[in-house]
Formats: sequence, structure tokens, C-alpha cells
Amino acid sequence: MSNRSPNMHHVIGQHLLADFHSCSQSTLINPIDIETTLKKAAQSAGATVISSYFHHFGEQLGVTGVLLLKESHMSIHTWPELNYCAIDIFMCGTAQIDAALTILNHYFQPEETSIHTIPRGLTP
Amino acid sequence: MSNRSPNMHHVIGQHLLADFHSCSQSTLINPIDIETTLKKAAQSAGATVISSYFHHFGEQLGVTGVLLLKESHMSIHTWPELNYCAIDIFMCGTAQIDAALTILNHYFQPEETSIHTIPRGLTP
Repeated sequence: MSNRSPNMHHVIGQHLLADFHSCSQSTLINPIDIETTLKKAAQSAGATVISSYFHHFGEQLGVTGVLLLKESHMSIHTWPELNYCAIDIFMCGTAQIDAALTILNHYFQPEETSIHTIPRGLTP
Repeated sequence: MSNRSPNMHHVIGQHLLADFHSCSQSTLINPIDIETTLKKAAQSAGATVISSYFHHFGEQLGVTGVLLLKESHMSIHTWPELNYCAIDIFMCGTAQIDAALTILNHYFQPEETSIHTIPRGLTP
């Protein structure tokens, strides 16, 4: 098709998946604190928040939420019963994912962390 | 801390990152069609949508959006100028990511695809 450009492949940005284990339950059950922390992390990275949506599954239960960013998104899902949360940060342009991760580590203080970083937009 | 359980590590779910290259631009610029497609994909996977948020950067420009799911989330960011979109699907429980991916492939019809699937919640 004329409007396809199959040879135009770029690195669009970096997508970081962070598994935070052995967090204190108190950090995983408060949607307001978690939203504030993610916004602070986005700001620290130099990213621009378009909108923010958080859902609390109930008292003492998990939180799921996302920031839509001009540079893509950040999301979090928490499992307080497992002292665990799953975070992903997809940022394009000059946004600094490491700066965001520092803020998140400071708040959740996981005892163990697993990180995967996948470049997005590469040639298959 | 007494409310931490450092030895309780589980596989929580699967997180799939899909890069769709060489899509037709017409599939990448309509936020309503894209939202409809993602909802259809979530439904096909057996997932439950909590809420849906889509942002259009402007006529002929990209779309960024997310479905918050009971099972975690799906997100998409499109770059029509590159005939490219970046999708991620994080689903827990019995949701069928492959079924969602089939719906997305049918709509976007990428000529080239790159997929990464990362188990979430594993022991670091």
C-alpha cells in the first residue's frame, strides 16, 4: 500500500517493566499515595502527564492505575497480599526513566527487584 | 518487617509487548476505532474492562490510550507518520492474551511484528 513505509523502523523509546517484591503492605493499598508517587516519578523523569486514572479494588486490597503521558505511559498494579507490585514505564523522547525509577524505589522500598528494559520500535 | 513476605513469589501473569510495523496509516489515526478494537480484544481474551481512556493528539496524528482491566491493562500508542504502533497487554488469571492479539492483528494488519512476552511476579 502506498501509505506504508515498511523500511522506516526507529527506536521510539524504552519500555521498562519493574517487579517490586517484598514491599510493605502499607505502600500498596493507598490509591492517593500511589497516584501522587507516580506523578512525582513522571515529573522527575521530565515527562508530561496527559491524564491519570486509578482504581482501588477495596479497603486493604490492591490498586491499579495508569498515567497517560505525552511520552507514552506509566502503569502500576499492586497485590498487597503478596507484598508485590508490577510497574511499567514506557517513555519516548528525552524522558529519563531512571529518574522515575528512583522515586518509585524510594516510596515502595522493595527488598527485591526485577527489571526488564525493552527498546520499542526496533526493526523486527 | 512483619508484614513482608519475601519468600512469596508467584507468577502473577504475562506481559506482552507487541511492536506492529508497516500498518496502514488509516488504522492508526482514529481513536474511536482503536478503542473499539482494544475493547473487542479484551473481550475476546475473557478480560473485564474497568475503564477506558483514549487521547488523540490531533487530526492525522497519533492516538494514545489504555484499558484498565480487572486482569491488569492494555495500552496502545500509535505513530501514523511511522506506520507504527506499540501495544502492551498485561493479563493475569485465566485471560487469553493470544485471543486479544488475534483481534489486534486483524485490525492493524502489520506487515512486520515484534513480540516480547515477560512473565510478571517471578522471583528476581
